[in-house]
Amino acid sequence: MADLAEQKERVYLAGPDVFLPNAAAVLESKRKLCAKHGFVGLSPFDNEIDRFGLSKHEVALRISAANEDMIRSSDLVIANLTPFRGPSADVGTVYEMGFARALSLPVFAYTNVAGSLLERTRKWLGDAIRQRGNGTFEDTFGMSVEDFDCVDNLMLAGAVEAGGAKIVVNPVPDRERFTELAGFEKCLEFASRWQANRR
Amino acid sequence: MADLAEQKERVYLAGPDVFLPNAAAVLESKRKLCAKHGFVGLSPFDNEIDRFGLSKHEVALRISAANEDMIRSSDLVIANLTPFRGPSADVGTVYEMGFARALSLPVFAYTNVAGSLLERTRKWLGDAIRQRGNGTFEDTFGMSVEDFDCVDNLMLAGAVEAGGAKIVVNPVPDRERFTELAGFEKCLEFASRWQANRR
Repeated sequence: MADLAEQKERVYLAGPDVFLPNAAAVLESKRKLCAKHGFVGLSPFDNEIDRFGLSKHEVALRISAANEDMIRSSDLVIANLTPFRGPSADVGTVYEMGFARALSLPVFAYTNVAGSLLERTRKWLGDAIRQRGNGTFEDTFGMSVEDFDCVDNLMLAGAVEAGGAKIVVNPVPDRERFTELAGFEKCLEFASRWQANRR
Repeated sequence: MADLAEQKERVYLAGPDVFLPNAAAVLESKRKLCAKHGFVGLSPFDNEIDRFGLSKHEVALRISAANEDMIRSSDLVIANLTPFRGPSADVGTVYEMGFARALSLPVFAYTNVAGSLLERTRKWLGDAIRQRGNGTFEDTFGMSVEDFDCVDNLMLAGAVEAGGAKIVVNPVPDRERFTELAGFEKCLEFASRWQANRR
């Protein structure tokens, strides 16, 4: 029994949350929700990097290495795929999803914005998109717009569904887009089910 | 000697190239450049998926699994990080970079667009970005714009530099943005050097 606390599984909290003005508070809320569901939440924000005497670029490389180490030390990942400055998720988050998946960690994910990648890309690109004769869409470079009934790029859907879950879609008003955590908690429920099935 | 051809190292060709109207031709050019430098190029486009009777979403999951298998069977990755419908790289490409990196494959990358992530994000967001009192920048959600003198998100810089290379930046006219391959060939030179150093 004494070891139970140490055995709690570690959840890497991937997402653009780190860029929020109240990042520390949001990530603390995520950690509390993890604890409520029997997990320990780990945030890249917790990686204390000594920046003294380092260039910005050197700091970047240290943060990158620390984040990769943190994912390696985790048991699963919950990724915030809410579209970030475009129709798709934050690329840092997506990189970490791929990283976790290659390590065979289960990856859960949520987004606070509705729609398929195709729908959001059409909205985002506006006039810079056109429909071809065969009904598919292309941008001004003539590049296809992916249309696979997926929330985002098919690699992201694949990563989550390979673990038996679905990307949680929980649309909220735009001002709560990066702070609402109901979708995150739904991922914790998926994670608990995964944990229970494994035992 | 007879086995030499089989021993050629396999390069996974990650990039939004698959969305191009002339994707097959561009990827064939990449494969030829790989051969010129003693490598074998593998493209996700080569994953022939039998779509018969499957929904779009089911096809997506099969492509995703086939791409992951192809990366696992590769020796290194060359990623096209040219910004795609926003200030950052294509998320599918980025996912694959993270995936490869976790498998300890060397990751090389190029972009055909100049500028740091900060410079491109400022340009992309336009009025929807403001400078704070301390000189840093935020978007309309109050979210920081990353400023680490990196070509794109710091995880991408970290992935490439961990292997001893740099992201190749080779600005070209906008119409050649997704087809110009000089940056790609530079990555093959990095890869040859990596190969030589290992022997």
